[in-house]
Amino acid sequence: MANLPLHISILGAGNVATHLARQFIKHPDIQLQQMYNRHIHKLKEFESTTEIIDKLEQLKPADIFIIALKDDVIGNVSQRLQTFDNLIVHTSGSVSINALKVKRKGVFYPFQTFSKNKAINNFKTIPVLIEANNTKDISLLKTLGKILSDKVQIVNSEQRKALHIAGVFAANFVNHLYVEGAKILADNNLSFDLIKPLITEVAQKVQTMPPAQAQTGPAVRHDFNIIANHLNFIKDEDQKKIYKTLTDSIIKNHPKS
Amino acid sequence: MANLPLHISILGAGNVATHLARQFIKHPDIQLQQMYNRHIHKLKEFESTTEIIDKLEQLKPADIFIIALKDDVIGNVSQRLQTFDNLIVHTSGSVSINALKVKRKGVFYPFQTFSKNKAINNFKTIPVLIEANNTKDISLLKTLGKILSDKVQIVNSEQRKALHIAGVFAANFVNHLYVEGAKILADNNLSFDLIKPLITEVAQKVQTMPPAQAQTGPAVRHDFNIIANHLNFIKDEDQKKIYKTLTDSIIKNHPKS
Repeated sequence: MANLPLHISILGAGNVATHLARQFIKHPDIQLQQMYNRHIHKLKEFESTTEIIDKLEQLKPADIFIIALKDDVIGNVSQRLQTFDNLIVHTSGSVSINALKVKRKGVFYPFQTFSKNKAINNFKTIPVLIEANNTKDISLLKTLGKILSDKVQIVNSEQRKALHIAGVFAANFVNHLYVEGAKILADNNLSFDLIKPLITEVAQKVQTMPPAQAQTGPAVRHDFNIIANHLNFIKDEDQKKIYKTLTDSIIKNHPKS
Repeated sequence: MANLPLHISILGAGNVATHLARQFIKHPDIQLQQMYNRHIHKLKEFESTTEIIDKLEQLKPADIFIIALKDDVIGNVSQRLQTFDNLIVHTSGSVSINALKVKRKGVFYPFQTFSKNKAINNFKTIPVLIEANNTKDISLLKTLGKILSDKVQIVNSEQRKALHIAGVFAANFVNHLYVEGAKILADNNLSFDLIKPLITEVAQKVQTMPPAQAQTGPAVRHDFNIIANHLNFIKDEDQKKIYKTLTDSIIKNHPKS
């Protein structure tokens, strides 16, 4: 077991770095030791609670370094931490553990969408997916993970990629469908507020019911009159393409019984 | 003003008919007078609380008849109610008010997704969109609507169609993306439970933030490496097509600043 409090330093000032830091400073078992970013002004929120730095050379040893930077710089930044014997992890859904060019490497992936200006209601419910190359480092990441979340799970890099892609479908693409819905409403002088209860209900339904079973709408009913009617109503070519692509896929998933 | 309780009869035994009936029997200001369906066994749930019938000839006058049947039978069924002087409405998002072949016609459209085996938490928050051809009937529908919901609004048939299409995007298509996400998880031995908090958060975010502003993920970041990587990982051709279509649309909506 690692000695508590865990000394953690975060590299990054983006959405993930910010939300992890906000959690860490609340927990007595974690000492947020340093936060690094090239643009130090982005770390202003944390200047009174931790040491903020803008040069990698200023980093001091820590139990875990968390690299929460853009995917394409993770490898290079990790190389500049090779002098440390400490565990160095990234937080990306898409990057292999082997992108880290250090001795002790790992992944600490909180599976949630983060925006700086939107607080997280309950971090304890957010799955934290971890990966490391030996039991000691797994144990260290489990200790950290369990301080934040009730749902810590080991997944390999391939599974983590699948999880990220599933998230692109069920979160990023979903949000884009809200965007297109909002445009259709605005074009017809209708408030986006009208659709908010529907959005909530659809997301709530699949918390207790398999999504395939929760499917409703003209496509699952094979109601080709309404589908044609809708496609005739929609003028935007991208919306037409989205409508056709998703309708075709729903129909294939639900062949007429 | 109409005399209370309002006498209402429902034609239909589907999701909308069932959820409306469940609401009506709870409210002292509404008398659910009769429920009709060709297949009377589908109305079994209501046999102890209202008169259930399977022949249109058995219908008695009511303040409002609600036709909650499949879109393509609304016109024909309404024709068989021409002897009544009462207000006759349908509940469809897609069908014009003029499909009703009766003197006093209207629309009563609760904008929510209903499944019989999923209870509605709070009907008061569900928008009810109404339409009628004169102030007396509008007033009658407003009275009924306000008994159920705090959000009763008059919309015309064109707006209602737009609202329905927005719902197809933000609800039916959204649910299908949950389905595809679930498949990707299952294919990689990951539980659908892992993605539930993300689904909830994405739906919650747009309750207080415009969806365009809430957009995250590789497409809005123009991260073409990850996009190529994901497309390489995805083997299913339909999923590839959905991924490309929605990614292209997100990129067009968020040109690089």
